[in-house]
Amino acid sequence: MTYDAVRQAMERIRPPADPNLEGLVCQRMSMLTKPAGSLGRLEDLALRVALMRGEMSPAIRRKRMVVFCGDHGVTAEGVSAYPSDVTRQMAANFVRGGAAISVLCRQYNIECVVVDAGIEGDPVPGVVPGKIAPGTRNFAREPAMTREQAEASIALGFSQASDADLLGAGEMGIGNTTSAAALMAAFTGLDPAACAGRGTGVDDATLAHKVDVIRRALDLHRPDPANAIGTLAALGGFEIGAIAGFILGAAASRTPVVLDGFIACSAALVVRALCPTALDYVVYAHRSQEHGHAAMLTTLGADPLLDLGMRLGEGSGAALGMQVVESAVRLYVEMATFRDAGVSEASA
Amino acid sequence: MTYDAVRQAMERIRPPADPNLEGLVCQRMSMLTKPAGSLGRLEDLALRVALMRGEMSPAIRRKRMVVFCGDHGVTAEGVSAYPSDVTRQMAANFVRGGAAISVLCRQYNIECVVVDAGIEGDPVPGVVPGKIAPGTRNFAREPAMTREQAEASIALGFSQASDADLLGAGEMGIGNTTSAAALMAAFTGLDPAACAGRGTGVDDATLAHKVDVIRRALDLHRPDPANAIGTLAALGGFEIGAIAGFILGAAASRTPVVLDGFIACSAALVVRALCPTALDYVVYAHRSQEHGHAAMLTTLGADPLLDLGMRLGEGSGAALGMQVVESAVRLYVEMATFRDAGVSEASA
Repeated sequence: MTYDAVRQAMERIRPPADPNLEGLVCQRMSMLTKPAGSLGRLEDLALRVALMRGEMSPAIRRKRMVVFCGDHGVTAEGVSAYPSDVTRQMAANFVRGGAAISVLCRQYNIECVVVDAGIEGDPVPGVVPGKIAPGTRNFAREPAMTREQAEASIALGFSQASDADLLGAGEMGIGNTTSAAALMAAFTGLDPAACAGRGTGVDDATLAHKVDVIRRALDLHRPDPANAIGTLAALGGFEIGAIAGFILGAAASRTPVVLDGFIACSAALVVRALCPTALDYVVYAHRSQEHGHAAMLTTLGADPLLDLGMRLGEGSGAALGMQVVESAVRLYVEMATFRDAGVSEASA
Repeated sequence: MTYDAVRQAMERIRPPADPNLEGLVCQRMSMLTKPAGSLGRLEDLALRVALMRGEMSPAIRRKRMVVFCGDHGVTAEGVSAYPSDVTRQMAANFVRGGAAISVLCRQYNIECVVVDAGIEGDPVPGVVPGKIAPGTRNFAREPAMTREQAEASIALGFSQASDADLLGAGEMGIGNTTSAAALMAAFTGLDPAACAGRGTGVDDATLAHKVDVIRRALDLHRPDPANAIGTLAALGGFEIGAIAGFILGAAASRTPVVLDGFIACSAALVVRALCPTALDYVVYAHRSQEHGHAAMLTTLGADPLLDLGMRLGEGSGAALGMQVVESAVRLYVEMATFRDAGVSEASA
């Protein structure tokens, strides 16, 4: 898939709005055997999914979680508690079923697809090939990627958003909270100290260094937040570009996509600059403990479903969120109406 | 089962504490392929379940949701938007699979058991018989039940807390938010206006009337909050007494029990007065939109897992919470360790 094809698809993305369908969904919702409004946010979610899919009775048969993996040249600056090797080791762990996302996808019957968007070294068996390059370059010294690579990462993600009624996006990439925080600072104008957090668990000194690395990189590249591709190319993350493309692909195929935490949401900032309507197809799964996530969610106008103190990535929060979305849709589709169940309604 | 047997079982309930086991669980948790602490509350939950069960590797094979149903004489005061018939109609809907709790239990592979704790009228096919009486008496005018009936409701619930690795409790009973709010006022000393809410959706005038009914009932019965059985008998709810017994049964069999919202938590207040240690086995599923629930949770020292704006009852919030508990346990039990997966650990 070329980026030109993505560009054309983007132009066809429409908001999930249809007053006629909305009226019909709300009418059915009011007939279900429960007090009006008593399912809270699940009712809004079901309506949103029906409008995204353009269907009165959407079914959630195929659930697909895609975990995009990539390495980051910026790890040379000593910004992570883990060595870069861990990206490839964890990708292998995902495929073998030993990682958190593997366990959750097994429990919830979600197909788990692991995609190599730019892991260093040889291909990992069982991982879908898609390597843009063996890791980004060190954005503290040069652009993380070329414009062509940024576009290719988006096209890669776009092509993965298919064959599902409900999509989820996760990532793995040592160093990628630094990349995500830099993108956040570039797109929001917030100070890097408000964006960068402890990632996998760095100490105070490393966190201060991480903030400094981002600050210097912004001075070096002076990214233009209106230029989504240029900003992505400067500060990188092949897996982040891929998730941005995945969101666009979901919106183009009118499929709800559940986003994980801090890094996945930084991809939503790329989409916001590229094609904001696509974000109407996003469900924000959870509030991550990663420092900058709260402000990022505010920028995105997002009120996530869950707040369980998680900060693991991989799509772990998204997997939990997908179950809530499925519950919302099933309740709306499968519950009996007052009439069918012979249940008396409330007095007016 | 007699209440004497419950009383004996209560004396054997011990806090889920074992420093040796706790050390082993935390050690394994630190070896799993994830940054330390990155699963947030799921890590605490897994530890709690291991300690409750007294097992290093607890398995969640059998999940059981019990929905206790009962009618309330206080509906004669006009405190609900729905007629009492709806309790029995909804019990039939649960069994036929058309209610919210039916849909959620189907999705999550939870066995759903519906128990008649005191529904008015003939037995409902498919509902487990356990009728203490055909509805409580009107507590605005007389005690809702006798002391013997209160004890029988607890024994009924206790006997249902078996054959599962994870239990959930829900309820159905037109009028039961009035009973739960009255119990809350009696046990906490809070003003009835801080306890009563809109239930299935009453208007301002009916809510004010509901508060007034509770205020007058407290004046009439003057329940002693140290007397759990006497207070339960005065203000009633066969299904509420049954959930209290269910919690005691869960604790006696060292099984985690996930509680639903406002009404289920009012049963926890009964347990708090009867055998507070049993509450160590409770997981609070969600923050209900019902007005008094926030203050009730504060009294119970509870910080529920979910906040989705729900206020349906039936165990719907508990079903969602049970999945989070299962995820927590599966992650802890099934994830690979750094060594097994060949993943490098963080630098010290």
